[in-house]
Amino acid sequence: MGKPVILVTNDDGVMAPGIRHLVKFMLELGEVVVVAPDKPQSGMGHAVTIVNPIRLEKITVDGGHQEFSCSGTPVDCVKLAVNKVLNRKPDLLVSGINHGSNASINVIYSGTMSAAIEGAMEDIPSIGFSLLDYRFDADFMAGKKYVQQIAGNVLKQGLPKGICLNVNIPAVKESDIQGVKVCRQARANWEEEFDHRKDPRGKDYYWLTGRFRLHENSNETDEYALSNNYVSVVPIQFDFTAHGLIPELKKWKLDA
Amino acid sequence: MGKPVILVTNDDGVMAPGIRHLVKFMLELGEVVVVAPDKPQSGMGHAVTIVNPIRLEKITVDGGHQEFSCSGTPVDCVKLAVNKVLNRKPDLLVSGINHGSNASINVIYSGTMSAAIEGAMEDIPSIGFSLLDYRFDADFMAGKKYVQQIAGNVLKQGLPKGICLNVNIPAVKESDIQGVKVCRQARANWEEEFDHRKDPRGKDYYWLTGRFRLHENSNETDEYALSNNYVSVVPIQFDFTAHGLIPELKKWKLDA
Repeated sequence: MGKPVILVTNDDGVMAPGIRHLVKFMLELGEVVVVAPDKPQSGMGHAVTIVNPIRLEKITVDGGHQEFSCSGTPVDCVKLAVNKVLNRKPDLLVSGINHGSNASINVIYSGTMSAAIEGAMEDIPSIGFSLLDYRFDADFMAGKKYVQQIAGNVLKQGLPKGICLNVNIPAVKESDIQGVKVCRQARANWEEEFDHRKDPRGKDYYWLTGRFRLHENSNETDEYALSNNYVSVVPIQFDFTAHGLIPELKKWKLDA
Repeated sequence: MGKPVILVTNDDGVMAPGIRHLVKFMLELGEVVVVAPDKPQSGMGHAVTIVNPIRLEKITVDGGHQEFSCSGTPVDCVKLAVNKVLNRKPDLLVSGINHGSNASINVIYSGTMSAAIEGAMEDIPSIGFSLLDYRFDADFMAGKKYVQQIAGNVLKQGLPKGICLNVNIPAVKESDIQGVKVCRQARANWEEEFDHRKDPRGKDYYWLTGRFRLHENSNETDEYALSNNYVSVVPIQFDFTAHGLIPELKKWKLDA
């Protein structure tokens, strides 16, 4: 049996330190192919490029494995990689390591996780990794052991159809990481604030800013795990149906 | 009690026929404020604009209600509308009417639905409307009665916290619409095909295309309802956790 084929992508761009570390970690587990955006795509959600054509360029960064820089979104990268680069499904898709948290409600805005969800939609065992540190020179080595263990486990055991993993790593020293906790997405939201300014021509513009607001204190959530220095693992699915509400809604007279 | 305040947005851009019809339908139910993208934003998923500033311009299209054109995504429009235009939560948020289906797995790629989901995240009763017809001159009048009935019901009864509605309308004559069905998101995916071309300078580029593949024949899904000429109503939530897998995943030795 040959080495497993591992597709690596992200949303911070192909040259971001987070993906460069992830590539190195994965080279110890299998044969790596990189298809990642040519520029940062943070906050892209599950965007796809349909109005513009997509460019794909072969690049060499370090090592002899195949790498491509793509003009599209993280989801475009996955679609193109499977259809035009690999011409098969990889044995594992890993996305990240994201610079910053994708825990809790951040999953919905996350380009990193959109790539992993797209992988799950194509029946590829997929994992999104994020480190709770936005800085360019964040310490990605502290979580290396956990990234490799989780990826290795998924390579060995696979994942159920339609489910990927959202893995977040606390921004602490390796010796302070307490282990791994399987948990659920915490209930939270972003409270928006807009920074309202005027440009040199006197025209208004706005910067989106905001404050993260956690709405619960349960010990079963990813936010709880992370705040206690555990690596959080949340299984993620893409059926958005609020199944519990269907019986109630059927009683409404929606067409009267 | 004054008229309810209804925020209208979409992802096809503020001048698209779908939103122009939706504005007219809502003017019969309440006081309308429009904040919608200045250009098409289809396929944007739950994207937000964080790297660039956002512009907001007051425009007049038809009638005396307030309208704004926004340089951001549909999610940006909702955030800006609540925080900088209305300075309060509207009584109802409606997004659409989208040109084309947002049933089944399309919900995850949909800018129309991302606006409605953002509304639900901010505890605003929110509905996304879509018509299964991509054409510029699609017949949006056929579904008028249903759009108004569903919006009127939600205005009257509200929606549970964290849940919005995904409403799709079949592309048939009004007299052929069979009524409304509350249902769940059908299991389906897009099978990608990339149209590979060379530009005039000989460089490769790709157009994303694809084929919709339905994976089930249940009569409980939105696709079933629509193919039988019913308006489909799916309650949508934003907890992505695959709760059912948590006990199983806890048995894995993820940190060993």
